Amino acid sequence: MSAAPAHIIEDLWLIGIGTGSPAHVTGEGMQALRDAAVILVPDKGDDKGDLLALRHAILTQSGTAAQVIRFEYPVRDPALPYQDRVAQWHDEIARRWQAAMAEADRAGPVALLVWGDPSLYDSTLRIAGRLAPSPRLRVVPGITAIQALTAAHALPLNTVNGPVTITTGRRLRDHGWPQGAETVVVMLDGECAFRDLPADTLIWWGAFLGMPEQILVHGSVGDVADRIVQTRADARTQHGWIMDTYLLRKGADGSGE
Amino acid sequence: MSAAPAHIIEDLWLIGIGTGSPAHVTGEGMQALRDAAVILVPDKGDDKGDLLALRHAILTQSGTAAQVIRFEYPVRDPALPYQDRVAQWHDEIARRWQAAMAEADRAGPVALLVWGDPSLYDSTLRIAGRLAPSPRLRVVPGITAIQALTAAHALPLNTVNGPVTITTGRRLRDHGWPQGAETVVVMLDGECAFRDLPADTLIWWGAFLGMPEQILVHGSVGDVADRIVQTRADARTQHGWIMDTYLLRKGADGSGE
Repeated sequence: MSAAPAHIIEDLWLIGIGTGSPAHVTGEGMQALRDAAVILVPDKGDDKGDLLALRHAILTQSGTAAQVIRFEYPVRDPALPYQDRVAQWHDEIARRWQAAMAEADRAGPVALLVWGDPSLYDSTLRIAGRLAPSPRLRVVPGITAIQALTAAHALPLNTVNGPVTITTGRRLRDHGWPQGAETVVVMLDGECAFRDLPADTLIWWGAFLGMPEQILVHGSVGDVADRIVQTRADARTQHGWIMDTYLLRKGADGSGE
Repeated sequence: MSAAPAHIIEDLWLIGIGTGSPAHVTGEGMQALRDAAVILVPDKGDDKGDLLALRHAILTQSGTAAQVIRFEYPVRDPALPYQDRVAQWHDEIARRWQAAMAEADRAGPVALLVWGDPSLYDSTLRIAGRLAPSPRLRVVPGITAIQALTAAHALPLNTVNGPVTITTGRRLRDHGWPQGAETVVVMLDGECAFRDLPADTLIWWGAFLGMPEQILVHGSVGDVADRIVQTRADARTQHGWIMDTYLLRKGADGSGE
């Protein structure tokens, strides 16, 4: 920490790393890691130790010579109402990125590794919007959990020329089946909202997609809902965390044809 | 063509190659190309010569030693009604895969390079379902046009916890704005159905995503629809083909926040 380094983030690169396999990273992603000057890596606590290990495996595989700076990830304040809680949390993460940059000993692009793809149910772009001055943004796309799910099940996402709705567990629980939807993909569902669907609804579920621990279940909700709930609870206990997602089609015409 | 080669496709690998840049291919995709024994490459005629060049650039970059077999891509019969036309076309493609395998001089996994991701508005999985005997299927996910679009615009796909509807130009034209949708992504729209939307609808449009020729336009439909129509027509004339997609949000709350 001798001469004044570049503490300002002029170029911020958000690099999608896929859902758990270093082999999900694209050629562009690996090259961006090599071209970055600084890489900010969150420290989210021990319960996600295998995610930290994954990030390090990707960095090693890329052969990057960037300076890697760890920063502690904040927790959300449960006392605040939902929208305020998220807004304050995003503010705090942006502050921590900038605080971590005090350790930067070189100037150049700053990279963040983003789980999945930076565009899909991820806050990194919104947090980046809080930085002042605004950096130049570059987004490198990555494999999403949706693609890892359909690939693992060898399943088309859409029916022929059919629409697809992507939604959250909370919305499925509060609003039910989205009107007019043929295929529904549900993200961020910690409460297994699929249990309330008609028994003949078809579900393709997956957890730890792309990782050696990957688990897949599919069938009708009536047949497999309890199994998914139990499998999910067991896996969560075993690993200390879980990431899962699922695809739904209505029973009558859910074959994908 | 000496001793009897394996004409039967026992293992079929569908490898998503992203939307136009060899750098979109994942580590898994590159490795699968190297591990394949045979790679079937469609010959779609001169008008998509740059796509053929892209496929060859990817194969070269992978360093694969697989046997590459070209096959002529059939055309759809315009005399048939839509569903029949597509079904007959898929049957014919499956026949051509099998016919091309007569040239195979080695046994092992057979790979196909699939534009974008094999799960999204792509027929390869459905065509594979027509093969007899059924091969073991492996799907390698790839970057979709949706991710290339949001990355290029540095735009979140979803609003905070909001749903996303993916649909086709035909459905948007015939059914209008999908009920309850906040964000709509439109694929396969050769007729610029966005022109009929309210003028304050926000649109983020992109063509040749990920390629050096990439073109981006965004703004309100009232401001930029004519420009997109003209840009699209000019680019199509220049290249002989075009692939484009776009994201829509309603005017009032379309900021992504």
